[in-house]
Amino acid sequence: MPIPVSISVDAMGADSGPAIAVDGIEVILKRKAGTQARFLLHGDEAILKPLVDAKPEHVRSRIEIRHSDSEVRMTDKPSEAVRRSRGSSMWNAMVSVKDGEAAAVVSAGNTGALMAISKVVLRMKKGVHRPAIAASWPTTRGHTVVLDVGANVECGPSQLVEFAIMGEAYHRAVHGSTDPTVGLLNVGQEELKGNDVVRAADRLIREAHLKLNYHGFVEGDDISLGRTDVVVTDGFSGNIALKTAEGTAKLVGAWMRDAFTSSLSARLGAILLSISGLKQLRARLDPRTINGGVLLGLNGMVVKSHGGTDGEGFATALGIGIDLAPSGFLSEIEGNLRRLAEAEETEAAKEPAE
Amino acid sequence: MPIPVSISVDAMGADSGPAIAVDGIEVILKRKAGTQARFLLHGDEAILKPLVDAKPEHVRSRIEIRHSDSEVRMTDKPSEAVRRSRGSSMWNAMVSVKDGEAAAVVSAGNTGALMAISKVVLRMKKGVHRPAIAASWPTTRGHTVVLDVGANVECGPSQLVEFAIMGEAYHRAVHGSTDPTVGLLNVGQEELKGNDVVRAADRLIREAHLKLNYHGFVEGDDISLGRTDVVVTDGFSGNIALKTAEGTAKLVGAWMRDAFTSSLSARLGAILLSISGLKQLRARLDPRTINGGVLLGLNGMVVKSHGGTDGEGFATALGIGIDLAPSGFLSEIEGNLRRLAEAEETEAAKEPAE
Repeated sequence: MPIPVSISVDAMGADSGPAIAVDGIEVILKRKAGTQARFLLHGDEAILKPLVDAKPEHVRSRIEIRHSDSEVRMTDKPSEAVRRSRGSSMWNAMVSVKDGEAAAVVSAGNTGALMAISKVVLRMKKGVHRPAIAASWPTTRGHTVVLDVGANVECGPSQLVEFAIMGEAYHRAVHGSTDPTVGLLNVGQEELKGNDVVRAADRLIREAHLKLNYHGFVEGDDISLGRTDVVVTDGFSGNIALKTAEGTAKLVGAWMRDAFTSSLSARLGAILLSISGLKQLRARLDPRTINGGVLLGLNGMVVKSHGGTDGEGFATALGIGIDLAPSGFLSEIEGNLRRLAEAEETEAAKEPAE
Repeated sequence: MPIPVSISVDAMGADSGPAIAVDGIEVILKRKAGTQARFLLHGDEAILKPLVDAKPEHVRSRIEIRHSDSEVRMTDKPSEAVRRSRGSSMWNAMVSVKDGEAAAVVSAGNTGALMAISKVVLRMKKGVHRPAIAASWPTTRGHTVVLDVGANVECGPSQLVEFAIMGEAYHRAVHGSTDPTVGLLNVGQEELKGNDVVRAADRLIREAHLKLNYHGFVEGDDISLGRTDVVVTDGFSGNIALKTAEGTAKLVGAWMRDAFTSSLSARLGAILLSISGLKQLRARLDPRTINGGVLLGLNGMVVKSHGGTDGEGFATALGIGIDLAPSGFLSEIEGNLRRLAEAEETEAAKEPAE
């Protein structure tokens, strides 16, 4: 029998309060019927206890409340958060992972603070400049992992190559692929196009002799088409791509509702559809089913839930934590990070003028 | 009776050959039943003449073939295109606008070459660094103009402010708005987020006393929601956003087809829907109905069609040219460009150390 996984939860981060964390635990226990997962719930005990007590026994029995005196606010700047957040629910949730009590931490709180605190508490893996946030994107062929989707607004070439290494290992761990392909997001497939940073990253990735199935440049529409399993970009473009896709899916959803209510025959058609296909389609378009970005590059697993989500969405983020826990992806990225460091040293030795 | 507008067409640029240009003319004459538009068709007469002769009299009579000995290839680099393209269909089509024979040029050819040739033949408006490509994006509320969607991979702050000025005038001209709102694309709505360039552009736009209804930062999902009428960004992020939206719409379309064929009742439902709402929904999801980016910042109107489009899509690009022709948007941007230049001079005078 496998050892039950423990997930550390920052219960105080979500926009609508701690109830969604407790609801999320109930939902994920239902979705993953056989799971033995347990949850360390960090936050204000006076608020959390009545919420937990209101749940049925099979949910209550999986939760251990860990009281925190304070919480990180959405308005805190990352630098302030690190100084002032010792003892907050976010900090303490991270410490549970560092101390080996939990396999992953899940939080819906302030992204900048989560990044900063995770770097201080868990520390970065050797060879990584800064953590990146990876999102799993549904495609016509499965899932594409896109990173960075918002942690690093400006990135140099070697950071993009680190993202490639981390994203590839993540795809193998979470989506079970054996040799995932990696693409670099650009504005055109010809090698001549694009800015200096992506062109330099393209050269570096080809010359670093990484064990990586590198495909070259891809464009924005290739993400949803699933042209490569991993798409690498800086946090500015990646965040804009992610949010644009969310907006487009919402727009098309609104158009569908228009179409289904435009006449009596359309309404009848929609009723017939709803018996079968429409339900699946609605589930696919539900942003809560793809909620949860993973912070990569740390000595520990950190899952960031959307701040504005509900219990269903938070459950998805908890599910990612549960799935990641037994995977070996943290150790798998180390070989390629070492090769990248060697390639950069060789490159630096070749160009003494720089 | 209004003077009939003339559109100059580069017939040789599309991936699938010149037939789509001739087909496009037939389609747009049908879509715009009352239009008096005429077309100067630039390209190889030996190829074009049989295509035109095969069309009915009411189409033939609107077309005047202008022979060109050469054409710009998709593989030509912009710098080569300028040197070698004199006398090509793209060059000659542009000259027709410069000489006042036509009100706008429409081409499905090589974007880089089109940019470079338009700068040489038409020249840029005073105060504009480089042209930008604007796309009209369907939203839940109407249309949002997004620029730049691919012409300028790297942009400074004052270029972004120029895009704001040009995009605002374009929205008034094409979508008939009176005081369109303008947003700056960023990764977060808080002023602290984002990279140095967008933060500097935000300051400049606020301090330049432009006649502009400036809303501040917007995020990727705000484009499809129509939060502002104009969204300003650099050509790298803008192109990724545009292509990502196209890919997402395709993905959702594929999911819809799955849903409509998943069972017998779903098929029946889809048949009932197709009588009414589904047809409209399909039209909304058809990328050919939003084909055509406009090059802004030049002394003349240039419409870029997607290279891989067909007659229906090329007709949309021709329609944009016809709609733009009588508008005064070229002169409308001049006042704000002057104010921006003054604000930059004041800024430079204030900071002698820089």
